[in-house]
Amino acid sequence: MKKKRAAVVGATGVAGQQFVAALDGHPWFEITHLGASTRSAGKRYGDALRDATSGQLRWWAEGEPPAALLDLKISTGEDLDTDAVDLVFSAIESDAARDLEPLWAAKRPVLSTASAFRYEDDVPLLLPGVSFGHEQLLDEQRKRRGWKGFVVPQPNCTVTGLAITLKPLADAFGLAGVSMVSMQGISGAGRSPGVSALDAIDNIIPYIPSEEEKVAREAKKLLGTLGAAGITDATVEISATCTRAGVTEGHTEVVSVELERAASPDEAAGILRKAGREAAGLDLPSMPETLIEVLDDPFRPQPRLDRDRGRGMTTTVGRIRPEPLYDNGLKYMLVTHNTKMGAACGAVLVAEYLASKGLV
Amino acid sequence: MKKKRAAVVGATGVAGQQFVAALDGHPWFEITHLGASTRSAGKRYGDALRDATSGQLRWWAEGEPPAALLDLKISTGEDLDTDAVDLVFSAIESDAARDLEPLWAAKRPVLSTASAFRYEDDVPLLLPGVSFGHEQLLDEQRKRRGWKGFVVPQPNCTVTGLAITLKPLADAFGLAGVSMVSMQGISGAGRSPGVSALDAIDNIIPYIPSEEEKVAREAKKLLGTLGAAGITDATVEISATCTRAGVTEGHTEVVSVELERAASPDEAAGILRKAGREAAGLDLPSMPETLIEVLDDPFRPQPRLDRDRGRGMTTTVGRIRPEPLYDNGLKYMLVTHNTKMGAACGAVLVAEYLASKGLV
Amino acid sequence: MKKKRAAVVGATGVAGQQFVAALDGHPWFEITHLGASTRSAGKRYGDALRDATSGQLRWWAEGEPPAALLDLKISTGEDLDTDAVDLVFSAIESDAARDLEPLWAAKRPVLSTASAFRYEDDVPLLLPGVSFGHEQLLDEQRKRRGWKGFVVPQPNCTVTGLAITLKPLADAFGLAGVSMVSMQGISGAGRSPGVSALDAIDNIIPYIPSEEEKVAREAKKLLGTLGAAGITDATVEISATCTRAGVTEGHTEVVSVELERAASPDEAAGILRKAGREAAGLDLPSMPETLIEVLDDPFRPQPRLDRDRGRGMTTTVGRIRPEPLYDNGLKYMLVTHNTKMGAACGAVLVAEYLASKGLV
Amino acid sequence: MKKKRAAVVGATGVAGQQFVAALDGHPWFEITHLGASTRSAGKRYGDALRDATSGQLRWWAEGEPPAALLDLKISTGEDLDTDAVDLVFSAIESDAARDLEPLWAAKRPVLSTASAFRYEDDVPLLLPGVSFGHEQLLDEQRKRRGWKGFVVPQPNCTVTGLAITLKPLADAFGLAGVSMVSMQGISGAGRSPGVSALDAIDNIIPYIPSEEEKVAREAKKLLGTLGAAGITDATVEISATCTRAGVTEGHTEVVSVELERAASPDEAAGILRKAGREAAGLDLPSMPETLIEVLDDPFRPQPRLDRDRGRGMTTTVGRIRPEPLYDNGLKYMLVTHNTKMGAACGAVLVAEYLASKGLV
Repeated sequence: MKKKRAAVVGATGVAGQQFVAALDGHPWFEITHLGASTRSAGKRYGDALRDATSGQLRWWAEGEPPAALLDLKISTGEDLDTDAVDLVFSAIESDAARDLEPLWAAKRPVLSTASAFRYEDDVPLLLPGVSFGHEQLLDEQRKRRGWKGFVVPQPNCTVTGLAITLKPLADAFGLAGVSMVSMQGISGAGRSPGVSALDAIDNIIPYIPSEEEKVAREAKKLLGTLGAAGITDATVEISATCTRAGVTEGHTEVVSVELERAASPDEAAGILRKAGREAAGLDLPSMPETLIEVLDDPFRPQPRLDRDRGRGMTTTVGRIRPEPLYDNGLKYMLVTHNTKMGAACGAVLVAEYLASKGLV
Repeated sequence: MKKKRAAVVGATGVAGQQFVAALDGHPWFEITHLGASTRSAGKRYGDALRDATSGQLRWWAEGEPPAALLDLKISTGEDLDTDAVDLVFSAIESDAARDLEPLWAAKRPVLSTASAFRYEDDVPLLLPGVSFGHEQLLDEQRKRRGWKGFVVPQPNCTVTGLAITLKPLADAFGLAGVSMVSMQGISGAGRSPGVSALDAIDNIIPYIPSEEEKVAREAKKLLGTLGAAGITDATVEISATCTRAGVTEGHTEVVSVELERAASPDEAAGILRKAGREAAGLDLPSMPETLIEVLDDPFRPQPRLDRDRGRGMTTTVGRIRPEPLYDNGLKYMLVTHNTKMGAACGAVLVAEYLASKGLV
Repeated sequence: MKKKRAAVVGATGVAGQQFVAALDGHPWFEITHLGASTRSAGKRYGDALRDATSGQLRWWAEGEPPAALLDLKISTGEDLDTDAVDLVFSAIESDAARDLEPLWAAKRPVLSTASAFRYEDDVPLLLPGVSFGHEQLLDEQRKRRGWKGFVVPQPNCTVTGLAITLKPLADAFGLAGVSMVSMQGISGAGRSPGVSALDAIDNIIPYIPSEEEKVAREAKKLLGTLGAAGITDATVEISATCTRAGVTEGHTEVVSVELERAASPDEAAGILRKAGREAAGLDLPSMPETLIEVLDDPFRPQPRLDRDRGRGMTTTVGRIRPEPLYDNGLKYMLVTHNTKMGAACGAVLVAEYLASKGLV
Repeated sequence: MKKKRAAVVGATGVAGQQFVAALDGHPWFEITHLGASTRSAGKRYGDALRDATSGQLRWWAEGEPPAALLDLKISTGEDLDTDAVDLVFSAIESDAARDLEPLWAAKRPVLSTASAFRYEDDVPLLLPGVSFGHEQLLDEQRKRRGWKGFVVPQPNCTVTGLAITLKPLADAFGLAGVSMVSMQGISGAGRSPGVSALDAIDNIIPYIPSEEEKVAREAKKLLGTLGAAGITDATVEISATCTRAGVTEGHTEVVSVELERAASPDEAAGILRKAGREAAGLDLPSMPETLIEVLDDPFRPQPRLDRDRGRGMTTTVGRIRPEPLYDNGLKYMLVTHNTKMGAACGAVLVAEYLASKGLV
């Protein structure tokens, strides 16, 4: 099979580099075009990755920048030749995304980590085991906007693991309320400027602007149902407190759920362990064997030990136990990899899924 | 006024050293006796603080060991001459406390950081702004056990800041339920062995054995009411998740409360800011000017910036906002110093309080 | 005595805030004017400290911003009314310092943390126990530049503790060569952008641009001798490797020295312990009782335990032992507080010294 | 080829678990026997890995304990059936090693991480690119001690990367003196008790007992020459300062060398890049493609980014530049993985090498 030609825009930033790393050696997609801001446009990718003053290579993703891309010349987002690619991975800021992503979506599928379109009526959020199927909304999106392509944004990195664990519980037992407290890894804030080391060492940062609202809003949409009139948000109440801890990668989340029907910790564990079977059956290259791993050891999950499970695409759950505050309450903890499943790798998985459906 | 003569037992361990530091230069109390295990008994304090193999001074409290105590000879807990002291500060392990503290309490007041007696019917837990007054139970304790002295244990370091903030809310608005998630500093686990650095760096440890049960049980007792039949636990439901973060000192806690009557964040802040006025009026040396500081900056409290407020005796609160999960719900965060108010300094404050009541 | 009126310029940045904190309650100096960039000029100080978007207070120094200064209106550096102040503390970037500090120095003494003038022939670097006396060069500076005031820059934060320990050894035993490896705290890099948390956690950053050259150059000048022709740099060879470690405050330095005459570790310790006696005799408010503390415990100094010694103005030395690579070699380690003695507090101490000499 | 049967003794500790992980799926060796202390003897491996009190799985190596070994019954070291295995990997404490390793070596090859026999005249230290060939000393060892097997200890984890980089420089340019300052990862200290988190966070520990002596002594032996009379230590002077930094895995080392003949940084880089070619040609499963990687970016090597290079078996070098203190001086930095090349994986590589020579 000939590989589909992919553009990565925002390719010099943290999230864009993660797209580049996630697509390196990908069996279905091949990066043929790179886009970035005017500051980098016209440069070789290898040069644009170097700090102008110090000459230091600034590469935040795993490993090294793919040698084959170092000579690729960067274009601006405006000048991206959409005719020459089959799909676009967008890792640009939300403000820019509002203007640029429609340009590309007019012709091609756009998979984006920006939040710009997440809350639009005709824009689905796709997550394996949660909202695969919501892509049916893309017809409406194309029609309404007159696009040949479409935009599918990746949900916020904090909501990813949460929704992946809530969905099977909601389906099995009904879901009335959710309380979530996160201790988030710092990589989610990007690197430049990102989180200051002086704030992160020997400390907890108790607030991440807009994060709690995003978690609640996106979780309701992800857990919502697609009907003729579009997606109806789930009615569950979601209360999030998002903090930043001195952890490089991996979000740890403490979750309490009020269920509609009683479930024992063992029943819940059984349900979670079965999650994602359908998506796993599609043989998508980035889909982990196990979408949710449930551990019995009460000292797990830990971000340092569990974030890389399933190459960062598995959500690890532990400490499932009764929540005494609610009638049918359960508590658990989860660890999810914020820059793998929660960002570029998750968006690549969605692209694979859409390709398997003939939409990319 | 002649200073009261104090013994510190367990004086070579982390908690004992904190007693030694807290009592250094104390205006009312003076350490005249030191106790430790048989391994240290008979040695000079200065020698017992050194590692036998490397000769390294092992001192975990602030500053340096007080020079005046270095030559003091250590006795075993069994051999402690209670006649020669006016009160005993006990920082020994709970198993040992069960046997040794009664020996001392037979004659003298014992202030302890051990959990051994915390859950006994005739043993009060004393916390400023929360349960001062519960010392009336000590008559019953003395009578029942035939002691001239008594045992007053310091509550768990995680429940301290929680109870201090819950009590004024309970009094003002009624308290129906509490959810608490902690990110605890590692000093609470002692040093030897304490938390392994390999577990703490770039990580969150999701479980602290027994901690969640202690928090719930002690909070109910602290918020309880003293009647003729002793303390009746508060009926509030308390659900705690206790984790360990890569923070040296200071516990950060995310708290959600269900109140019986509606309260706005501003009303709650006003109530919290007034907490502890009565205790502050007693002019106790260790009592902070402000028991609870409420900050408006949403990026506060942070453990590194706020733990030392009021010399570690003030609880800092921030991010007060509605909790949508409950009818009359509020959420907030707090930082409390686990080895100051939550340990030795808190117990010294209780000793001061009891002295002001003529009980020590 | 009426306090001298001081301006702090660059008052909203990290270094400027440290000046503000260092001068809070100072017995000799009082901040009457604040300067900053045009972005802040015209605002109240309290407003300028808040992030424009989030409203978050951005305060990096200890404690809280002094209440008395919150309403002070900020001027630009260009508009600073030098007639209305007695001295200027400058915490601006070096590029700006090159233009602005001469404006102020034309009329008033300027104490600066910028490196702009450090390497000028007629500019002394002043450090207690090292180069106090070099202020005699200021006459020449005034004459040559036609200034009524002068500029005295604070040396680099990494060279401070190094020079303080090298000088007494050089005087006592002669100094032929110095090798230094630093593990520097991250606060030295400022906060905005400062060091990224993603670079600092679970990591060592092996390179700090320009730092090694600064250390060598400034150490030679500090250890140099003032003669008729100005300062003659010390001829000692200095080889520095500067790294950044995951430490908030405090630089740790591993030092090897080749001496001209043999010295035992005990002799060196004796010499170091006597350092700074003369400066200590001047009764300067910021001068620590002990300029160099020498510890025998091989596990010291440690940045977390020793950086605050002498309110951050004492250099702590340990592990003095023979250096087998040299004929008369010694090795030792030191911890110095980079944002206290190594920055604003050090510059305030120099201002005190110059005031005691009638120069401020 | 039938796999050789291997025993791992000390299998429940940190170093032993790393042997278990390193041998999991190994193409040449298969664990058939596990040994540990009497406390674990008689238990299933899966049970012995659990904390007796909490039931917590205590596994410090990567991934999970191999499922196939969980049911293997543990024997004591004394009872290990040497007839039933082909070689023994020993990860026991040095004191125990002195007694037990001879028992096993009487019959079988013993590869050990213990230091017990490192300094014996008839015991070689084997490191690829450095001292492969020194195994010829094993004949003498067998003869002298009357063993059918032998003991080959793995050198200290801090000397590994140092010797690997020094050897090619010594061969090419002659080596007169070495100064080394390390910032070591905490995993090298084991986990139980290991380094306390309270010592490691926001801190540098300036001293590691015995480490500096080991580095100097073992480096001289590794760089020594094997002759008829055994190994003659290299005459180079080696001065080490070993510190512990807040890094989980990976030792960072700052190295200064005095060469006998001048070499430019580029020449040195060229020599280092060619190191280990001969060993690489042996097709040993654990041998990395590149023994030494030299990076030009001055911000590298960093432990978090470079420790896993070559699956933790490659030493990464950077910042090669002149050392002004010496006539023919060079400085550089290196990162080496202390629990991979510096421990179990390195010992497995040696076992592979010895197998390729027919000695195992």
